[in-house]
Amino acid sequence: MLGTVLHAPRDVRFEEVPEPTIVHPTDAIIRLSATCICGSDLWPYRGLNDVTSPMAMGHEYCGIVEEVGSAVTTVRRGQFVVGSFVISDNTCPHCRFGFQSSCEQREFMTGAQAPLARVPFADGTLVATAELPPDDLIPSLLATSDVLGTGWYAANAARVQPDSTVVVVGDGAVGLMGVLAAKQIGAGRIIAMSRHKTRQDLALEFGATDIVSERGDAGVAQVKRLTSGVGAESVLECVGMKESMFQALNCARPGGSIGYVGVPHGVEFNGEQLFFAQKSMMGGPAPVRRFLPHLIDLVLQRKINPGKVFDLQLPLADVAEGYRAMDERRAIKTLLRS
Amino acid sequence: MLGTVLHAPRDVRFEEVPEPTIVHPTDAIIRLSATCICGSDLWPYRGLNDVTSPMAMGHEYCGIVEEVGSAVTTVRRGQFVVGSFVISDNTCPHCRFGFQSSCEQREFMTGAQAPLARVPFADGTLVATAELPPDDLIPSLLATSDVLGTGWYAANAARVQPDSTVVVVGDGAVGLMGVLAAKQIGAGRIIAMSRHKTRQDLALEFGATDIVSERGDAGVAQVKRLTSGVGAESVLECVGMKESMFQALNCARPGGSIGYVGVPHGVEFNGEQLFFAQKSMMGGPAPVRRFLPHLIDLVLQRKINPGKVFDLQLPLADVAEGYRAMDERRAIKTLLRS
Repeated sequence: MLGTVLHAPRDVRFEEVPEPTIVHPTDAIIRLSATCICGSDLWPYRGLNDVTSPMAMGHEYCGIVEEVGSAVTTVRRGQFVVGSFVISDNTCPHCRFGFQSSCEQREFMTGAQAPLARVPFADGTLVATAELPPDDLIPSLLATSDVLGTGWYAANAARVQPDSTVVVVGDGAVGLMGVLAAKQIGAGRIIAMSRHKTRQDLALEFGATDIVSERGDAGVAQVKRLTSGVGAESVLECVGMKESMFQALNCARPGGSIGYVGVPHGVEFNGEQLFFAQKSMMGGPAPVRRFLPHLIDLVLQRKINPGKVFDLQLPLADVAEGYRAMDERRAIKTLLRS
Repeated sequence: MLGTVLHAPRDVRFEEVPEPTIVHPTDAIIRLSATCICGSDLWPYRGLNDVTSPMAMGHEYCGIVEEVGSAVTTVRRGQFVVGSFVISDNTCPHCRFGFQSSCEQREFMTGAQAPLARVPFADGTLVATAELPPDDLIPSLLATSDVLGTGWYAANAARVQPDSTVVVVGDGAVGLMGVLAAKQIGAGRIIAMSRHKTRQDLALEFGATDIVSERGDAGVAQVKRLTSGVGAESVLECVGMKESMFQALNCARPGGSIGYVGVPHGVEFNGEQLFFAQKSMMGGPAPVRRFLPHLIDLVLQRKINPGKVFDLQLPLADVAEGYRAMDERRAIKTLLRS
């Protein structure tokens, strides 16, 4: 079959790859209804992470189960499933504690920008729907697999409460999903930091009450103005750069919480500064599996429409153009369908 | 009067200082029933913090109100009071959020290793008891002012829950108070990391269920063995050194929480490592004022006996020997009475 492989920075190819097969009895093979490109795929694409050997790209997925291994008991051929971008057994102590993204068996999904994909630990990773969902819900169901689950975790890690004040740093797809999550959890005020009109509009549609277009110290000052000089209870850091991380820290009030879900690149914290800032910090790869049943339910009930974050849809064969569009910020997030 | 002044590392003198007077109408003057030496006093004593000019030492205090400024309304002459080591107005947004240690008017108490002390923002900082307490409770009431309040905050910041597993890193007075706090909150298992017999014994008396005498990686391995390879939900970091901080981080399970109350000295965190560790970090100077009424109540009801942490009592005039005893680890904590 044809699948997506990154050979070197900016060299992404849709090329012949081996068709996936059951390797372990706990595996499943799924035929993807849709897949997409993640902001984190841009790190190696831009050469900011090393590409030492060809990488099978893609970790966001949903689709129809094609085949299951002999040990799989909870999903079966023909079912529609969504899975987390982190593979987990969902039975180890970390999974049972709600941190499936630190599962003892953790693997990160790969190779999902293709027609078929192998999902290890299918019982622990996949969630099946009761019936096949209508086609118009596929983009939103796909979003639960990572981008919505990650935005949701950011809100959870930042301890968003009903009626509280929330700041979202980062207007990429995850940040926009963070806005949606904060809205669903019932935040009273959601300040989205964004300089781009189309992203501002989407943030407002997802539930933002205020837009701050300034960045850095000026952005922090504007957040302070909007919060009577106090800062926000919860801040979602959805970028992972030094500037955005300290912007997030400085937007939070003392005793407030920062949930950070952008993988930090070149970020160092001074212990004494962090101490006197007196703010809770919680981050990491999102334990999407914890939230999946709830998020799938919200989508199936049409209470949320996270699929709106896909502002470009391309045939899977045009995946390279999808990367280019996101790299050049012409697209927030690219949906790919065969 | 005579008070305690640090002139240079290891040069602490009990010498003539001006008697405190009401400077602002919100001040109170108290006659100290007892005071003590804090582990943090040893940082400048040991030259690890700069001593650029003579420092009036002492920030833990309780005593009888001698005089109040014209604006003070909640405490009056003759009452017994305990105050936090952080001065706060208890009315600003940060105070109302429970973070009096980040009060907009924050000052750090000084000059309490003396017979009399001035307490700014008396209404916001001091808590009066209904009647004069019996003399045998004075050490425990004094402990609430900082060392117990700080250990309590460590447990709070580390989100200690009933029946949970807790590790306490640091067997100084604050760590021992952290053990006591975890016990009061109802932790099921409390692992105290300590190499010193007298401190181990006190930890067990305060509620520790296990002692780990190894440090660093060996200590972490032992904690893992005691927790079936998982780690602890909550870890209290009560030292502030690089080694102890990473020991604390590594003892926590993914999704667990570290409450750190030792002022970090020379500690740097790598953002990416912290991200993948996936542990909540919350620290800072303890908002003791939040906990004071409850802690005073527990002492007056004789439900806790934190005063046991004082294993050396000296006349105030012998304060220099108190510093030496703590510096040489001959004493855990020195109580001083006139």
